[in-house]
Amino acid sequence: MHLTRFLRSQHQSLAHIVDHYAQYPPTGLTMKRIVEFAREGDAQQSFLFLRNELPVRLASMMKEMGHLPPRLLKMPSVKTVNGWYGTSLFDLHSFRHLKPTGEIIKKFTETLQNIRRRHKSVVETLAQGYMEFSDSGKVKEYEESQIQYFLNRFYLSRISIRLLMYQHTMCFGEEVPEHPSHLGFVDPNCFVEDTVKDAFENAQFLCEGYYLVAPSLRLRTINATNPDELISIAYVPSHLYHVMFELFKNAMRATVEYAESQKSSNKLPPITVNIVKAKEDLTIHISDRGGGIPRSKADKIFRYMYSTAPRPVSLTDSQHSGPIPLAGFGYGLPISRLYARYFNGDMQIHSIDGYGTDAYVYLQAVEDQASEWLPICNQAAYEYYSSRKYQSDWTKKK
Amino acid sequence: MHLTRFLRSQHQSLAHIVDHYAQYPPTGLTMKRIVEFAREGDAQQSFLFLRNELPVRLASMMKEMGHLPPRLLKMPSVKTVNGWYGTSLFDLHSFRHLKPTGEIIKKFTETLQNIRRRHKSVVETLAQGYMEFSDSGKVKEYEESQIQYFLNRFYLSRISIRLLMYQHTMCFGEEVPEHPSHLGFVDPNCFVEDTVKDAFENAQFLCEGYYLVAPSLRLRTINATNPDELISIAYVPSHLYHVMFELFKNAMRATVEYAESQKSSNKLPPITVNIVKAKEDLTIHISDRGGGIPRSKADKIFRYMYSTAPRPVSLTDSQHSGPIPLAGFGYGLPISRLYARYFNGDMQIHSIDGYGTDAYVYLQAVEDQASEWLPICNQAAYEYYSSRKYQSDWTKKK
Repeated sequence: MHLTRFLRSQHQSLAHIVDHYAQYPPTGLTMKRIVEFAREGDAQQSFLFLRNELPVRLASMMKEMGHLPPRLLKMPSVKTVNGWYGTSLFDLHSFRHLKPTGEIIKKFTETLQNIRRRHKSVVETLAQGYMEFSDSGKVKEYEESQIQYFLNRFYLSRISIRLLMYQHTMCFGEEVPEHPSHLGFVDPNCFVEDTVKDAFENAQFLCEGYYLVAPSLRLRTINATNPDELISIAYVPSHLYHVMFELFKNAMRATVEYAESQKSSNKLPPITVNIVKAKEDLTIHISDRGGGIPRSKADKIFRYMYSTAPRPVSLTDSQHSGPIPLAGFGYGLPISRLYARYFNGDMQIHSIDGYGTDAYVYLQAVEDQASEWLPICNQAAYEYYSSRKYQSDWTKKK
Repeated sequence: MHLTRFLRSQHQSLAHIVDHYAQYPPTGLTMKRIVEFAREGDAQQSFLFLRNELPVRLASMMKEMGHLPPRLLKMPSVKTVNGWYGTSLFDLHSFRHLKPTGEIIKKFTETLQNIRRRHKSVVETLAQGYMEFSDSGKVKEYEESQIQYFLNRFYLSRISIRLLMYQHTMCFGEEVPEHPSHLGFVDPNCFVEDTVKDAFENAQFLCEGYYLVAPSLRLRTINATNPDELISIAYVPSHLYHVMFELFKNAMRATVEYAESQKSSNKLPPITVNIVKAKEDLTIHISDRGGGIPRSKADKIFRYMYSTAPRPVSLTDSQHSGPIPLAGFGYGLPISRLYARYFNGDMQIHSIDGYGTDAYVYLQAVEDQASEWLPICNQAAYEYYSSRKYQSDWTKKK
């Protein structure tokens, strides 16, 4: 076959596969179901579920990506990410009619590991694509809002895809969980206080390395349902760690820099953390006295590419190659919030300008209420991408 | 003229007047402008501004009201409110070509007082209309969301209309402000701490009357810009009082009832309030230890007609006549939030299930940043009213 025709037919068939899978909504799992499946399921069931579910989640995001501003889609890094998704979708699609024999399942498990390696730097690479886009021309307001909308959906979808893959390779493949009591990536008894302290100590270590001082921790835990029991839930410890580490880094930086700006010679005010478990919610409340930020800035902290740190050197005009570092690119908070939201939790930040900042991390206290929260690629989403102008139905805030 | 034809022509001409004024966006004023105008303006300027601005604000809301579910518009109380708006619009419209003589301005001032009296019970009456609607048939999800959307806009518009009318009648008419240092309804030096304490003491009085106990206040003020100065801003004291009183009532009820439910014999935990003024924001942070509410309920506290208190007897099946009382109808929090938002502030509530609740009231610290935040009756709003179904672009939360 002539090369161009071959490529075109490949391309058409990819579009066809994307359309096929993207028409289905994702099947969100509860934490309860994930834990049970890790305990009682088997590789064959997992294979049968994932060979359909993973393509659905990949294809939905490819489909949505196609609705982004055309100039963005032409950026080299965006094309790279798109290519990875296409290749991985092909890889998984090739298993669609295969019998779940031991050998096939082994090959499937290897494929998942390959995909994971291929997609390792998706976040950085797409971040780079967004930077290429904004460096190469003016970004319109509606484009900006479409991209922010897309990135939240895309990165959350990616978190979910990675979790599903890890659950398979760790529970039914040869990879081993980080700890013998874990079920894949999930700890059925995640002691929240331990993870919080861990994150605090590591952030403190970094803070001391940079500033030579760091605030201390004032921690309190309240188990409102069983006052004498330690607080634990079934959760992904690395996700919780990620969220807490990010919040502590920010709280420490604010505390140290505010004290310096006030020329205060007092001891740094501690960062206070309350962990409360009730019937429905597990809430982690982090409170610092780092001077806070005004509301006009607070509106922006969950935007990708918004950062109060100086922007690292751009790739397009440097010798630097490979993916960019994330620090200072303004991805820490929005991605942490996605981790918190993934199992139907949330992260909210309220700052008191001139005083300090309160952050609230909400998690579901009950396993079968903690269900995956996932983007659905449907008409409502398309409408978002097709809106070309934004007209406010309220007077502009000054 | 034949009566039906006369009525129809009246009706058509009202529709015509509504269309005419509703095509203009409202002219939002800043607090700075309001204060200056109260000091330096005169009755004639005020007349020339208001005879146009008030009809614009009234007509916009009438226009939007026309987009509400038809069955709602047929409810007797909704018709009553609509009638009041129509009459007041006619009243104001009659001044459109008149020369601003002393006599005309006097008549205009009287007209404003009449309108104020006529519209006194708009909130209760519309609330009653909403109740008649939900009592007389099933409310669809999209209808519910349209009504909530409308009520926020309508009540905020009403707050603004009342303020403008009071500013005229108090600054340029014969009514006198509540305090000689006030400029109409506005206090150019509103000492926030005083208003907060006032609201606390009155809520405490009510609480003690009902429960025989009440929590105490632990208040701290931080003026981050001028540490030695008392915190004051130009503001409408009655609005701030309204917001604080509502929050304190809720905090006290929660504190007392939670302590009872825990069978605690300890002293009630105090309600702590931090008032912080910085360069941009003035923040009032209220923190109680009343056990909080779960996130599943917290989503609903700003909905009209949602209340944790028992619902008062409905009018449709009782002997009761006249407007319904608001307590327990779930109007306290959403309307307080509108007061906070009116001059570009906000109110946010974050609860920690099993522990307590934090409320944040944000006000603009700078007069010329405090601009009226007003609904605009435009295509974006019409689109909201025309959406008949709601499709989520995310998987449903459990």
